[in-house]
Amino acid sequence: MSGCIPSIAARPIEVTVAFNQKPYDLFELQTGQVRLIGLKTEARIDPARPDERRKSSLVEAAMILGPIVASRVTAAGITVYYRPARADIAVRWLAGAATDPTASLCYPYARMELPGTETAPPDEDWNPDPEFCTSLDRDEEHLRTAAHEALRRLGWRGGVAYDPACSTGTFLSSLKSVFPATRTIGQDRNAGMVSLARARLDEVHAGDSMRPAVARHSVDLLVLRHLNVAVTTAAEAAALFRAASDRLRPGGHCLVFGHTPVQLPSAFFEMQGYRVLSQLAATPSGHALFEFYVLAKPWETR
Amino acid sequence: MSGCIPSIAARPIEVTVAFNQKPYDLFELQTGQVRLIGLKTEARIDPARPDERRKSSLVEAAMILGPIVASRVTAAGITVYYRPARADIAVRWLAGAATDPTASLCYPYARMELPGTETAPPDEDWNPDPEFCTSLDRDEEHLRTAAHEALRRLGWRGGVAYDPACSTGTFLSSLKSVFPATRTIGQDRNAGMVSLARARLDEVHAGDSMRPAVARHSVDLLVLRHLNVAVTTAAEAAALFRAASDRLRPGGHCLVFGHTPVQLPSAFFEMQGYRVLSQLAATPSGHALFEFYVLAKPWETR
Repeated sequence: MSGCIPSIAARPIEVTVAFNQKPYDLFELQTGQVRLIGLKTEARIDPARPDERRKSSLVEAAMILGPIVASRVTAAGITVYYRPARADIAVRWLAGAATDPTASLCYPYARMELPGTETAPPDEDWNPDPEFCTSLDRDEEHLRTAAHEALRRLGWRGGVAYDPACSTGTFLSSLKSVFPATRTIGQDRNAGMVSLARARLDEVHAGDSMRPAVARHSVDLLVLRHLNVAVTTAAEAAALFRAASDRLRPGGHCLVFGHTPVQLPSAFFEMQGYRVLSQLAATPSGHALFEFYVLAKPWETR
Repeated sequence: MSGCIPSIAARPIEVTVAFNQKPYDLFELQTGQVRLIGLKTEARIDPARPDERRKSSLVEAAMILGPIVASRVTAAGITVYYRPARADIAVRWLAGAATDPTASLCYPYARMELPGTETAPPDEDWNPDPEFCTSLDRDEEHLRTAAHEALRRLGWRGGVAYDPACSTGTFLSSLKSVFPATRTIGQDRNAGMVSLARARLDEVHAGDSMRPAVARHSVDLLVLRHLNVAVTTAAEAAALFRAASDRLRPGGHCLVFGHTPVQLPSAFFEMQGYRVLSQLAATPSGHALFEFYVLAKPWETR
């Protein structure tokens, strides 16, 4: 679109994010023929509590800056040129994307605290103290709801659901509460999380998700919630996806999402042979969007 | 377009260019609704001499990789996911772009030899030995031709044409040979180039182009051939543009191009108040495209 927007439109302005700031706060939202840039800030977690705002996976209309005209990666960091969008039009784009099966939301710029050096946060962040776990579970409610919706659309009746980085186990156990014929298998490298999850899931393994504890092609539904910027680098995310993908049976499905930006684009999943059924979902109230990849593994793998 | 290409199209593949390779070889060509990625390699300089290939400003159809699906900037460098294009379709896209006034060709990724650190090559490269000058002048023939064409379309009758980094002076002197009522004023920081240019131009100044030697609003046609990756960084290019732009009179025109990728996007020129009349041009034979910005400075500057 960039060169093609007639000059009668608003004059472009730019947003620059240095490598040592948070380039992964920049998101691209595509819907129809429009390609929008936005900058993620704190969002309302629950529309009923408008004062409670936190940074999460949620993207609201007010975070949309406008249609992308051009972007540059220079020594100064990431610069995106865009035509500033009117607030009412941004609301319409967001609503349109929520019902557009081809719409995408993605984060093109990785975490790079030192220029060119991607870092993942230390594992100690994952101390499962009760307050942290409660907050984590609450902030993921829209993700659980979206998963239930997606599985209903897929006609999911049950089977083995495996999450190689299950943390508290709340996600899988919520799946089972809606689809009781599900066998829930979790895995986590954090001993505290493993203990918590054992109270909630059918089977829990301790260990790094690079070494999935389940057999090849034994999984009907693969849940990947750990390929995101707070947990891993882009290169590690690709390796983690490949390791887990091997466990999913042909014809099975995979859900990919995260509390923070997913480090792999939809194109990567296609390259691994998956059909991408959808790339984002909306909160029940429709006030925000978030990355939510629904992938189908073909029966015949190429 | 990225999320929107139906999955019946070719499965995406990726190209990755590390920061310490040449990310500025990646170009984006936009025409109509299609956004293409390409990788610049050696091009035919003269279609009549097919064996003579050099890396220059020229982009040929064979360098087009395909429609962009997604792009990522990570510690590994720049990764662009695209759907590989058939050769005959790439030829059609190139031909379409040549006659599309809204088409654009740009290089989104700057020179960064160390990750995140942009560098400009040392000035010693600009030793005006006769062989180098002959090669330089010959490789710029399509740029001179495009300038003549552009000025004809603008109805240029003559006036002051100023080039703050004139090198051999060949460019401005060729303008005067076609438009004799042109007063040619050059400037260069390289003493050898100043000597060469003095034999060809009406007026030549020695000095850095950050300090243009001509008066404010005294120029009718500004020629900027030095805002490119072989000469300057993106940040310097912006400062150089602003310094020179101040010398151009309201209602005047500006041509921006380079032997290597221009470091400023079209959106930057718009942000400075210019109208962008076109962003690229084709060789006379139509076998290749190159960046060629024709800018109009409004009468009333905002």
